[in-house]
Amino acid sequence: MKVEHCFCLKANEQEAVSDFWEGFSEKEKAFLLSEVSSGSKHYSSGCFIDEEETEEHMIYLQKGRVTAFISLENGKNIPLRFIRGGEMFGLSYPSLITGTITFQVLEEAEVYFVRKVLLLEKLSAYPKLLANYLAFVSQRTAFLLNKTILFSIQSNRQRIACFFLNEISHQNTCRLQIHLSKSCMLDCLGMSRSSFYREFNALQQTKAIVLIDKNQYQCCPDKLEAIMLEEAP
Amino acid sequence: MKVEHCFCLKANEQEAVSDFWEGFSEKEKAFLLSEVSSGSKHYSSGCFIDEEETEEHMIYLQKGRVTAFISLENGKNIPLRFIRGGEMFGLSYPSLITGTITFQVLEEAEVYFVRKVLLLEKLSAYPKLLANYLAFVSQRTAFLLNKTILFSIQSNRQRIACFFLNEISHQNTCRLQIHLSKSCMLDCLGMSRSSFYREFNALQQTKAIVLIDKNQYQCCPDKLEAIMLEEAP
Repeated sequence: MKVEHCFCLKANEQEAVSDFWEGFSEKEKAFLLSEVSSGSKHYSSGCFIDEEETEEHMIYLQKGRVTAFISLENGKNIPLRFIRGGEMFGLSYPSLITGTITFQVLEEAEVYFVRKVLLLEKLSAYPKLLANYLAFVSQRTAFLLNKTILFSIQSNRQRIACFFLNEISHQNTCRLQIHLSKSCMLDCLGMSRSSFYREFNALQQTKAIVLIDKNQYQCCPDKLEAIMLEEAP
Repeated sequence: MKVEHCFCLKANEQEAVSDFWEGFSEKEKAFLLSEVSSGSKHYSSGCFIDEEETEEHMIYLQKGRVTAFISLENGKNIPLRFIRGGEMFGLSYPSLITGTITFQVLEEAEVYFVRKVLLLEKLSAYPKLLANYLAFVSQRTAFLLNKTILFSIQSNRQRIACFFLNEISHQNTCRLQIHLSKSCMLDCLGMSRSSFYREFNALQQTKAIVLIDKNQYQCCPDKLEAIMLEEAP
């Protein structure tokens, strides 16, 4: 399985998705899914996945797209991660201290609610499944650690620079496709609208980032790197 | 194993630590550690654990204390997590996009560098070890997710309120022991010195938090909860 580097998994829509059941035949996958879950469930676009289910189970997204939101107590919802068909998600441990994670269906979804205790039994029996599961948790840790590092950057200008440097490294080109609205981008970067636009415009003026077309950016990695080296005031 | 709720594991020093080898006898633990690692290494207080080691291996801290820092490109080091004897740490995957995680010894440490591929073999053979390993990754995910949620709160006042509410729930009392210097606390909260003191003083004025003695705080959960419900400006 491929480890995702980016903060925000929808940034490049063309990208191939790793599948949790990689290395298993369709028949094996169907058998194992039936053993560890109580069958599939359909959700229409816009629906929220039932909270009791996401607290109790891990979830396998067979088809569709789902957005994970951080839902704060004051009603604010911040997109955390975009989940695509083939991916596993969900928490399965009760340790969030404020707010919750909610899951909204972005594109008609077919999901399996996986019972963790049954999955664990299979992990011991199928080394390939264990490898896939550990890759999944590694990927999730890497994603959250990258997000934590991004959020540790207090300068908003450096935070935007870091986001674009990450995309350059991930897309392997300085001419980027970012399939995120500005308002989603600023939420993912943890910034207020005013701070985001102030710093984004400053970056455009120095030509560190140039918006060349809808969702298309031309970046100058040297300028972005130089910004990252600046000391915080 | 006990899941740690708090953002910052040094906040309450009295707390018992979960051990990665829980459920194994000393003899079994010694045997398994010798099978998956190349022996132990001592580090004096103040030393950094070699970067090549932390990139290649998972690390078991047999004794001592270690601080994990986020080291940003501009030279700033932000404490991420405080690791105590009995805990596993380290990354073992190469997916950080900016800055690095560095590990500094806080109190003379004895560590084992665990080869991931050897550990994985044992995970399949010892279900108890697999359970401990999954508890460890769950704990790490929970910690990082809580940190991400904390950092998603844009209001600095709410971020401090959230930190204290978390400690109230974790220490199960409104009279808290916080064994963190203010400067460490503001780093853990991702705030500048000036923002932190402005908001901290505002919280003290409303008696939501009262510093009653060195490291001792009396909190009013109702006032802190009310702050969390305020809408962002």
